[in-house]
Amino acid sequence: MIVTVTLNPALDLTYAVDALVPYGTHRVATVAERPGGKGLNVARVLHQLGEPVLATGLLGGATGTRVAELLRHEGVRSGFVRIGGETRRTVAVVDGSDATGFWEPGPTITPAEWALFLAEFRELLGPATVVTLSGSLPPGVPLDAYAVLIAHAKRAGVPTLLDTSGPALRHGLLAAPAMAKPNAEELAALAPGPVVAAARALATGPVVVSRGAAGLVAVAHDEVWECAPPVPVDGNPTGAGDACVAALSRGLRDHTPWPELLADAVALSAAAVAAPVAGAFDPEVYRQTRAAIPASASGGSRVRTHR
Amino acid sequence: MIVTVTLNPALDLTYAVDALVPYGTHRVATVAERPGGKGLNVARVLHQLGEPVLATGLLGGATGTRVAELLRHEGVRSGFVRIGGETRRTVAVVDGSDATGFWEPGPTITPAEWALFLAEFRELLGPATVVTLSGSLPPGVPLDAYAVLIAHAKRAGVPTLLDTSGPALRHGLLAAPAMAKPNAEELAALAPGPVVAAARALATGPVVVSRGAAGLVAVAHDEVWECAPPVPVDGNPTGAGDACVAALSRGLRDHTPWPELLADAVALSAAAVAAPVAGAFDPEVYRQTRAAIPASASGGSRVRTHR
Repeated sequence: MIVTVTLNPALDLTYAVDALVPYGTHRVATVAERPGGKGLNVARVLHQLGEPVLATGLLGGATGTRVAELLRHEGVRSGFVRIGGETRRTVAVVDGSDATGFWEPGPTITPAEWALFLAEFRELLGPATVVTLSGSLPPGVPLDAYAVLIAHAKRAGVPTLLDTSGPALRHGLLAAPAMAKPNAEELAALAPGPVVAAARALATGPVVVSRGAAGLVAVAHDEVWECAPPVPVDGNPTGAGDACVAALSRGLRDHTPWPELLADAVALSAAAVAAPVAGAFDPEVYRQTRAAIPASASGGSRVRTHR
Repeated sequence: MIVTVTLNPALDLTYAVDALVPYGTHRVATVAERPGGKGLNVARVLHQLGEPVLATGLLGGATGTRVAELLRHEGVRSGFVRIGGETRRTVAVVDGSDATGFWEPGPTITPAEWALFLAEFRELLGPATVVTLSGSLPPGVPLDAYAVLIAHAKRAGVPTLLDTSGPALRHGLLAAPAMAKPNAEELAALAPGPVVAAARALATGPVVVSRGAAGLVAVAHDEVWECAPPVPVDGNPTGAGDACVAALSRGLRDHTPWPELLADAVALSAAAVAAPVAGAFDPEVYRQTRAAIPASASGGSRVRTHR
């Protein structure tokens, strides 16, 4: 099974209102509650793909209980370590024009809770085929947390896929995950300049850089691969990167060659944009987009090789 | 003990942000979580006064669990009936200027859940000295819900205090509670015109009308009493009406005469305005305001009698 790690999950609330009126009182017409946090989106996409997956990380309080309950309702297996703090909420207020977001701060993790998580993580490495590490680190967790998890996974022979930003990404890359998936802004924040040079400056292993509608660039040891969606997709880009990670993690497990791997990741990302919410994808858009991208490097698609 | 009924409670969240930016994303600096709903404020004020109190009503889901947990942390005894729906949240986003509110809709109550609550309520009438009935009715509960509860309490010899609005108030008044406490707007919405005439048109029993900084008017069978705070109090008026109900409920139990009763209710309301959050009061403001209002009708205060 693929293990997805989410150290700073959230309960995502979407409030539909008629119109946002600053300093007014709003009757919320509908409330949507979803498990939030990038790693949970990865787990939900993998589950929708029919892949065996287990979501782990840190959850606390009544909000954490609700997140676990929502995952259970969707049929996603989870094994979270309970913390004393309260899992954070995010609130997105949506009216006819746009969304206004409110992000609660995450709970602070104690050293004992982090030690408990490490023990749980090492247990999960037994049955794991791939581990994904997604999103920000909550306060209290060491900055090199992902590097520590990557090192444990390496010793257990389990490949890791890292999708985070800032110092957590910089530190994590030092442990050489099997793959990293920053987006172009996250990469540029750590190493300005052209994407290929930046990826090689930061990482010794393969880096897949997502560039929104411009698609993916994979910077491997001595190769660069590109793949973009054949037609632009309208929709909600939130969660597209997580769908990309879901596709890449499956490909890592199956040793899928770069052209097929990127084509699959581009198609699943486009299908996630076409779905109204993060952590889901439109199966028909997935199928159509995948079919429209030639699966081999020689297929005349936008996939190309540099040596 | 005084039993407070809250059929539509909430988890009240207050988000502090630097500045509200419509269609922006906000990092919330601090989150305050409090049990919400008028009846829970009544219970918390009574508990702070040292009065034996039990909070009952309907709670569901992880949010309901959190409300019960917060009450337990404050030491407030509660006995809520669990429902299948999720208790609602309210979110108040506060910046340097003002507050912007988002109110989730309440869960819909099933007939079976309402029947369960009625059975629980009748059990609680045994040890109850007074019952307060506060706030709106959630969807699914009959419009005459408060009238039914008042009738049950009457049969058990327990006086009731009704604080609600709209059809729930109109229907509730038909069952003749021992006292009602609408505010001036709620009364005017059902019966326009002068307060005393409106109260007598709607209710056969005593009605205490709250008028914000202008204080209270009590319309009894053949008397009208008035009492206002001696000095204006700056602060947060949310919850002042609930503090008033807390004072009135204690007075109902103790058969406190009108002048003392209104003086106490005015002082406790003012002390609630002086407290930063609903469901609490400033003990020093309570003491000082109470001392500044003569306790008898002949004391030269603003209390007067009409026959």
